[in-house]
Amino acid sequence: MSCTVELLSIGNELLLGNTVNTNASWIASRVTELGGQVVRVTTVPDDLGEISKSIIESSRRKPNFLITTGGIGPTFDDMTFRASAKALRSRVRVDTRAVEMMRQHYARRFPNRRLILTKPRLKMATIPARSEPIRNPVGTAPAIEFKVGKTLTFCLPGVPKETMAIFNETVAPIIEAKSAGATFLERWLQVRGVTESRLAPLIDRTMSRWPSVYIKSHPRGIIRGRSFIELHFSTHSRNPKSAERDMDNAVAGLKTKLMRIEASVRTKV
Amino acid sequence: MSCTVELLSIGNELLLGNTVNTNASWIASRVTELGGQVVRVTTVPDDLGEISKSIIESSRRKPNFLITTGGIGPTFDDMTFRASAKALRSRVRVDTRAVEMMRQHYARRFPNRRLILTKPRLKMATIPARSEPIRNPVGTAPAIEFKVGKTLTFCLPGVPKETMAIFNETVAPIIEAKSAGATFLERWLQVRGVTESRLAPLIDRTMSRWPSVYIKSHPRGIIRGRSFIELHFSTHSRNPKSAERDMDNAVAGLKTKLMRIEASVRTKV
Repeated sequence: MSCTVELLSIGNELLLGNTVNTNASWIASRVTELGGQVVRVTTVPDDLGEISKSIIESSRRKPNFLITTGGIGPTFDDMTFRASAKALRSRVRVDTRAVEMMRQHYARRFPNRRLILTKPRLKMATIPARSEPIRNPVGTAPAIEFKVGKTLTFCLPGVPKETMAIFNETVAPIIEAKSAGATFLERWLQVRGVTESRLAPLIDRTMSRWPSVYIKSHPRGIIRGRSFIELHFSTHSRNPKSAERDMDNAVAGLKTKLMRIEASVRTKV
Repeated sequence: MSCTVELLSIGNELLLGNTVNTNASWIASRVTELGGQVVRVTTVPDDLGEISKSIIESSRRKPNFLITTGGIGPTFDDMTFRASAKALRSRVRVDTRAVEMMRQHYARRFPNRRLILTKPRLKMATIPARSEPIRNPVGTAPAIEFKVGKTLTFCLPGVPKETMAIFNETVAPIIEAKSAGATFLERWLQVRGVTESRLAPLIDRTMSRWPSVYIKSHPRGIIRGRSFIELHFSTHSRNPKSAERDMDNAVAGLKTKLMRIEASVRTKV
């Protein structure tokens, strides 16, 4: 039983190429550390129909979790909550718990002022009827969570500082519990002086010998006339000891094969 | 008539979070420059079923173009060509044109050696029966193109240098021709001292006055006790003159409104 996660990144800026999707890679590496597996990332524009369609499509693939980022806030183009309601065939309504979270954030930031609930502010507390607000420890807009089918869905803001804070405080413990002791191991080898075509059969043979270890070659170009390739070894397992042993064996096995064909091999730390 | 593009990024490393998807943002910014619009980016693992399913799903949304990156090369986990064949309900076969492209690349790199067609090398020339090989000016593995439904699909390697070279040589001219003179304009304003909630109604009013201009606010945090927000103005248009005029008016209009509420505004260059 593995813990599967899909990500949905929302925002025109990602599709214009202005912004590199570092939220997705940050969340992916955290999920991996926690023992889960990110199985798909989808990026869509600030478009009500596209966002709600993507949430429904994702839930049909039945990952354990869906994490969306972006589209949360006071401006018209922040439409993740409305899109979530659409996906849930539910309505949005002002949530008093969300309002209270905003009040507390405001009180921390401006100790001497009282939060006036203007229309844009109320918008941030207007969430799907079938969702729960999640505290945002570093920003105004609360996040939300809800279930679509079997998929527990978290909608986080897209501002990286806020994405990270809410993920760490609320989402990470839930993913870790679901992964229940699964661990992820990885190693890197740097190989010089052999083309990927010569490497290919050696990788195949190593992987058939140690099927729990996945080896992927990343060609990094030609450096001083020699091919430079990085090999990534990875394994997901619930048994850290046997995983460690298989990993050691796979790395040592491939290293020996590489040395035989006179490649230069180095462990990347 | 707009020119729509979907991207499909293939590779476990993107889902482990090891690698930031800079190929997607690079291609997206090039497509935007060329007058096209990236409407969705999907990232999937090195998995035959997932890749072919994603190609089919994408073609059902009928973008003009689908550009895949990654999964091309000699190792077992390079399965984009087989997955494409599956999506096309076609077979793969060794393509003599692709072999010739590989020979020419090898001859340039090693003037005194002859390419021996080992199994891993033949794999790189084994493409779907209903596809055309595309020259790779900087690497061994050719790319391919084929049509699924109405969507012209390009499968490029994932090594950034090769992705860029093939995109620029072969894909860019085709996208530019399809966009037929559409231009994309953008501007940035930096606003200090106003929260996003206060900005929201001003943005709404500016956008209803100049509907062709899309304004998106990007909160960048609190700097020296003051909110710092970047505003991105963008427009896609076939009429550069009117686009420029609308853009100037929208920027000037919002600037005036901001000055009235005593925000500090600066044009970002």
